[in-house]
Order: sequence, then structure tokens, then C-alpha cells
Amino acid sequence: MTNTLYLPELREMLAENDAATLSEFCTALHPARTAEFMEGLSAQEVWNVLQYADVPLRVEVFGFFDRAKKIEIIETLDREAIAAFIGDLPPDDRVDLLNEVRPGIVGELMPLIPTDERRDIQRLSAYPEDTAGAVMTTQFARLSEDLPVAQAVKEVGQQAGELETIYYLYVVDEEDHLRGLLSFRQLVTAMGKPDTPIGELMERDLVTVNVAEDQEEVADKVARYNLLAIPVVDDEHRMLGIITHDDVIDVVREEATEDAHRIAAVAPLEVGYLETHLLTLTRKRGIWLTVLFFAAMLTALALEEYKGDLMQPGYVWLMLFIPLVISTGGNSGSQSATLIITALSTGDIKLQDWWRVVHRELVMGLLLGSFLGSIGYFCALLAAPAPAYLTAAVIPATLLLVVLCGTLLGSLLPLLFRRLGLDPAMMSNPFVAGLIDVLGIVIYMQVALQLLPTSD
Amino acid sequence: MTNTLYLPELREMLAENDAATLSEFCTALHPARTAEFMEGLSAQEVWNVLQYADVPLRVEVFGFFDRAKKIEIIETLDREAIAAFIGDLPPDDRVDLLNEVRPGIVGELMPLIPTDERRDIQRLSAYPEDTAGAVMTTQFARLSEDLPVAQAVKEVGQQAGELETIYYLYVVDEEDHLRGLLSFRQLVTAMGKPDTPIGELMERDLVTVNVAEDQEEVADKVARYNLLAIPVVDDEHRMLGIITHDDVIDVVREEATEDAHRIAAVAPLEVGYLETHLLTLTRKRGIWLTVLFFAAMLTALALEEYKGDLMQPGYVWLMLFIPLVISTGGNSGSQSATLIITALSTGDIKLQDWWRVVHRELVMGLLLGSFLGSIGYFCALLAAPAPAYLTAAVIPATLLLVVLCGTLLGSLLPLLFRRLGLDPAMMSNPFVAGLIDVLGIVIYMQVALQLLPTSD
Repeated sequence: MTNTLYLPELREMLAENDAATLSEFCTALHPARTAEFMEGLSAQEVWNVLQYADVPLRVEVFGFFDRAKKIEIIETLDREAIAAFIGDLPPDDRVDLLNEVRPGIVGELMPLIPTDERRDIQRLSAYPEDTAGAVMTTQFARLSEDLPVAQAVKEVGQQAGELETIYYLYVVDEEDHLRGLLSFRQLVTAMGKPDTPIGELMERDLVTVNVAEDQEEVADKVARYNLLAIPVVDDEHRMLGIITHDDVIDVVREEATEDAHRIAAVAPLEVGYLETHLLTLTRKRGIWLTVLFFAAMLTALALEEYKGDLMQPGYVWLMLFIPLVISTGGNSGSQSATLIITALSTGDIKLQDWWRVVHRELVMGLLLGSFLGSIGYFCALLAAPAPAYLTAAVIPATLLLVVLCGTLLGSLLPLLFRRLGLDPAMMSNPFVAGLIDVLGIVIYMQVALQLLPTSD
Repeated sequence: MTNTLYLPELREMLAENDAATLSEFCTALHPARTAEFMEGLSAQEVWNVLQYADVPLRVEVFGFFDRAKKIEIIETLDREAIAAFIGDLPPDDRVDLLNEVRPGIVGELMPLIPTDERRDIQRLSAYPEDTAGAVMTTQFARLSEDLPVAQAVKEVGQQAGELETIYYLYVVDEEDHLRGLLSFRQLVTAMGKPDTPIGELMERDLVTVNVAEDQEEVADKVARYNLLAIPVVDDEHRMLGIITHDDVIDVVREEATEDAHRIAAVAPLEVGYLETHLLTLTRKRGIWLTVLFFAAMLTALALEEYKGDLMQPGYVWLMLFIPLVISTGGNSGSQSATLIITALSTGDIKLQDWWRVVHRELVMGLLLGSFLGSIGYFCALLAAPAPAYLTAAVIPATLLLVVLCGTLLGSLLPLLFRRLGLDPAMMSNPFVAGLIDVLGIVIYMQVALQLLPTSD
């Protein structure tokens, strides 16, 4: 939704070089709204307006544009000006952005970016995607242990301009080993004792993440400990950066969406639905759809096996209920799988709970299976050959067994995949769906062969 | 996972009334770890240990116990002590907890809770679940516009002890109308000009939520504007409370899990998988499973309709591919539905994008359908009667149409439900699954009747 309300005015101001009004436009509103009002402008026009904001504000407003606009600005504008601007962007954001800018342009920009920032970009880009290192920012408030409170307050005031958050202050030694943490709040509360060294106030028992840890792990810790930011350390406990609460919200959303996609058998997308290239999306769906297709093909083989039986006069009516049996098994299986996958990813259940899970799913399978079986029995009475009250029993017996299989397989497979170190969300659905489809047919036919008279 | 490492030591210290070591235990570790080490203790023992921590720390450690332990402590210990303690808990958390404490006990506790806090509890409990009002806390830093910077810093230092966050300072008038906001960081940066009234520094263009807004809306705004906290106001823009970033992470997780459950046709759970009563869970699954069951029943009716045709000699082989056709349609439909539901809930697509969505899904449906159709053709050649190369064409033609239906229905139904003001996640799956199962059968049979010779 592009907000076009102020576009003519903005363009007029630009044409007239109306500096006073333009700088008021940049400062009067929340930066997010400033960005919103400029969405309809061209990259060059946006850039021209942003020249009327000071650097921190320019960076902030820029942060609220959508991805496509940001990349357009970086790709189309004067290389030197953009390179300097990239030097001012938050370290984590600029690496993300440069990953999507055309490589040729990145090649032209990199030599123009100030040395320190360029090194920082190179260092951060080296961390594998979805690890703590790839999400962290390298700007944080660094203080030494012997600094007195009064001076610490001053020091933070000076560092504040460049930092994403000043609300946690990290105490490090000369080699950047993380020694402790002080919240800004603790510092303020201690302002009555200005000469106390902050080393006496800081907390030493810290929650940290290793730079190689998965971003999901990071989100779990931040959520569990209610943190504003979490320090990222290397194997020697040297402090490398921090991950802030706003990035964690993004990670939580990203991971939840990825899980949902995996459960529905879509390989996770890197960007939004509309931004993903049509062929990429087709491929990400096609892979799993094909796997599922081959799994479903096994049902044809199973049916081929029983074709002779099904063609007997007393058996033909069974065909009517094939889709019902398969759907019901699949639905109960996908319910169980989703419940267990989400409970695993929110930490609600652990692998050790597997026995409780089996017990619960067994009871639920029996209850749900009996209930649906009873409904199924009455429907089957209408189609089954005489004596209907006997032959129709194939349907409830099958439904009970199929639902039981669904709940048990649906709950156990995600636990098994987690145990094997695989992503439960990615692996479970195709397996559960495929297995239950085939099992559904086999169970159905075996039950029928047991309960119905055969012609030979 | 209960940590039993220190249990014997803790019990020994309690038996010996070893105050020095117990208060060290309470302060040395991160409060979350302190709580973890006490998980194995009884409610009474936990309470005894907590007496060695000062009130703010006691509240913090308590916050890290799991829900069941918290409720056990509140329900079993001395009413008067617990009532006073409840007065110290964060306003949003205590309301949540009291909701789960046995009503009889709440009745005994309420008169013992200090008047101000009791009123606050009553006020907060009145807000409907999942609204901003139900998630907010009523403690925030309140300042008046004419306060000079130096005094504001002092004032915040004094208020700090009772507040959940001091990093955003809210400027209100005498009637609590929200006038502006100042980050603590801005205040610190302005400490060089101690006499400036904060009204001159504050931001006036604020992002707020109305007390009646849905918590999902709250999470969207906090994520979009990268906020630490968001102010909650009433219709007259009077400030009622704030919602902090850590509660937002919880909301994001909760909503994502709910969406995942709804997509898998499970009515959302209020608490975790293992904590939900088995019968409640069975009911929450049973409702939708039954709806889906009746939808699948329609496939039996559809097949009954075509039974006569299917029994013709040249048609019997078609039966083998019924599950394959239905599964493939269902899978492509659930892929599309999940993609659209998650994109709608992350704000990635809007209703206005429906035409782009249809276009994309049409293209993907054609591509995926043709691809799976080609594989299907080769498999069908093995089963189809002579001339196989002609008769087998029923399978690819059906698969193409079924996949197209799946992608189009799967994407359009969530958009339609959103348009009608219904939750796309809740409504789509049963409808998509049911419709596609039946459509799959009808398409299959119609294609067969067109392409294959009939006996009459």
C-alpha cells in the first residue's frame, strides 16, 4: 500500500529546493511514517529528500523502507555517496542488504566503503546463514571493569550516537573477553555512588550465545530470559557482537513461517511470497510435491495388489470409501504431527517426554477413531450388501485403526526425526502422509478380507 | 528437565537456617538459573529460600518458574504472605496467574491484597482475552512536559525500582493524556543541557495501540516500528499502560503456533500440549476432524454417482489412481493455502494483491500440474488398457486440472475468508481439503468419460 498523499507536495518542495520544509518533513514524523510517505518517490527523489535529515535520522528512515526500495536506492545512486552511507548503516542490516544487491555493484561499492566498515562487512558475511554470527551487530557499548559509575555514564553518552542499543553495557577485558554485564538501569540507580567501579555492580552470570549457534536457539534464549539483547561470543568467550530484541522478533516470525511452510511441504522461502521468483517458488513446491507424489504412487501399487479382491461382488462397495479412509488417516496424522512439531519448537515438550506423548496420542486415537468410526458405520449401512449390519462393520474397524495409526505415526515421526538430529518440521509431513496413505489402503483391505466372506 | 544438582545442599542450608549461604545462592546466579536450580523443591521450600532475596529479586526469580509451580506456590502457601507478594508482582503477570488459580483461593486472596493493587487487578481482568488491554502492564515511567532534563533523570532513577522498563519515558498531562515520548537514551544524550524541559525533546508523533485492539495487531506494530514497548491508550488517548518487547515475543510465538494448529485443523490450545487436558485436546481435534470427515463423506457420494461407469471393463483400472489424484490435489492445495495464510499474517501480502496471487498460482499450477502429469502418464501406461498411450492420457489431464484447482482454491479461499472478516487460518483448511477431495473425484470421472470409450 503506497501512501500517495504527500507525493505532489514532496516533489514540489524538491523542485523548489525548499530546505526548511523538507527538513521539517524529515524530523516531524516518526521515521517509519516518513518512510511510508516517500514510498511512491523514485530512488533518486528519496535520496534527495534524505539529504535534509542528519545521518542518524537518515539511517533510521532508510531502515523503514521495504527491501526492494532499499536495494533500488543502493543499486541506482552515485556509488561514492552510497558507499559512505553504507558505512553508516547498522552492521547487521548492511550485510543483509549487500547479499541481495547485484554482485557487480557490490564489487564497485566495496572499495569505496571506509576500511573499518569494509572489514566489518567481510567478517560478518563470512558467518553461515541463520547462525548467531549472521544476525548479530558488532556495535555495542563496551566498558572496562575499573571505570567508575560517573565516568561510565559519560562514556555511554558519548558512544550512544553510534550504537543500536545502550541499555546493556558489556564489560570486557583488554582482549575483549566478556567479563560481565550492567544494565543501563543499574548504572542509573547507582548514580548516587559515582566513584564505585562498575566491576562491583556488574552481573557475572551471563546468558550468552556462541557465534555458530542457530538463530532459533538465540530466539529461545532471548524469549526465555526476557532479554533486550544477548551477547555473542566465540569459543574463547571473546565478545563479538550482540543480537537485539527487534532482530529476535524477526527471527521468531521467520522461523514460525518456515515451520509452517515445511509442515505444508514447501521448502522455506528466503524472502516474501510476492518477492520470491515464480520459478524458485515452483521449484520449492515441486520438490516436495514430487516426493509426496511418489509416496502416493505406492497407494496405486497397494490397490493393484488387492484389485482381484476388490472386484468380487461383495467387495465393490468398499471402493466408495477409499478416499474417506485415506483422508481421515491423513487428517488425524497431520493434526498430531503439527501439534508435536510446534510443541517441540516452542520447547513445550522434549524428547524425554516421548512416552507421555505416545500415551496421550494412543488415548486420543482411540477416542477420535471410535467416534468417527460410529458415524462411519451408519453411513456404511446404506452402501454395504446384506447383511449390512455385519458387512458395514468393515468401515468403523478400519477407521479406528487408521486414526490410531495417524495419531501414533504423526506424533512419533517428528520425535524420531528430532532424535536423529533432523528438522522435525521438514521431514515429518511427507513421511506421515505417504505412510498413512499406503497403510490406510492395506489396513482397509486386510480388515475387509477378515470380516467379509471371500468367493473362494 | 528438573535440575537436581543442588537440591540436597539447598535443603541442608534450609534445615540449618544458613542465611549467609542462602542469600548468596539467591544473588550469585542469573535469576533464571536460580529458579532452575529450585525446580525440584516443594512450594514451601521454594518460598523459604526466596525469603533470603529482597523483594525485586524475589519477584524476578519467581517469574522464571514454570506456570504450574507458580500456581502451586500461590495456592498452597500462607494467604497473607502470598497476598502481599501478589501486590509486588508485575501487573500483567499477576492477572494471568490469578486466572488459573482456583476461584475459591482467589476469593480468599483478593481481600488481603493491598487496595491499589487489588483495583488494578480488577481493572486489568476486565479486558477481553487477546486484546492489548489484557497483555499490557500498568507500570510505566510517567513524566510531565515541563520537567527539566536533570530532574527527569533523577525522577526516573526513583521510579526505576517499580517499573518493568525505564527505557521509554511517557509524557502525560494532568488527565493522563499521552503527549509525547522520550527514550531514556535521548534523555542521557541531553544531559549536557540539564535545564531544558523534556517537552522540547520529546517526540510527538507516536505509535500507539488502542486498549481494545487485538494482540496480533500489537505485535505487528512493535515488530514494524522496532519498538521496545508500545503505549496503550483509550479512545480519548489517555494512557493506560504499556506492552513490552518480551511480551510481544510471547504473543508472536503464541499467534504463530495458533496459526499452525488452525492450518492443521486443530482448534488453538490455551496452554501447552502436555498441559492441555486430554479430553479438551480430543474435543479441539474432534470438532474439525468431524467436519473434515463429513466433507470426505461427499467423496463417497460422488463415487457412488460414478459407480456404474467405473464398473465398465475399460474403467476399472482408474480405481488404482483415486488416492493418488486426491492426495496430489490436497497437497498442492495445502501448499498454496499455507503460503497465503502465512503471507497474510506476516503482512507480506494484502487483500489488494489478490490478482497477483491468482496470476502466480495459475502459473505455478500449470507448471506443477504438467510436471506431475508427465510422471503420472508413464506410470499410467503400465496399468491402462490398450491402446495404453491413448487411455493413459486420463491421468495427466486429471492431474493437471486437479493441481490447478488445488493452487487456485488454496490461494483464493484464505483471501476470501480474510475479506469476509474471518480468520483465514481457521477456515481455509477444512474447506480447501473438502472441496478438493470432491472436485478431484468429479474431475477424474469427467475426464475419463470424455477420453475413454463408454460401453453404451
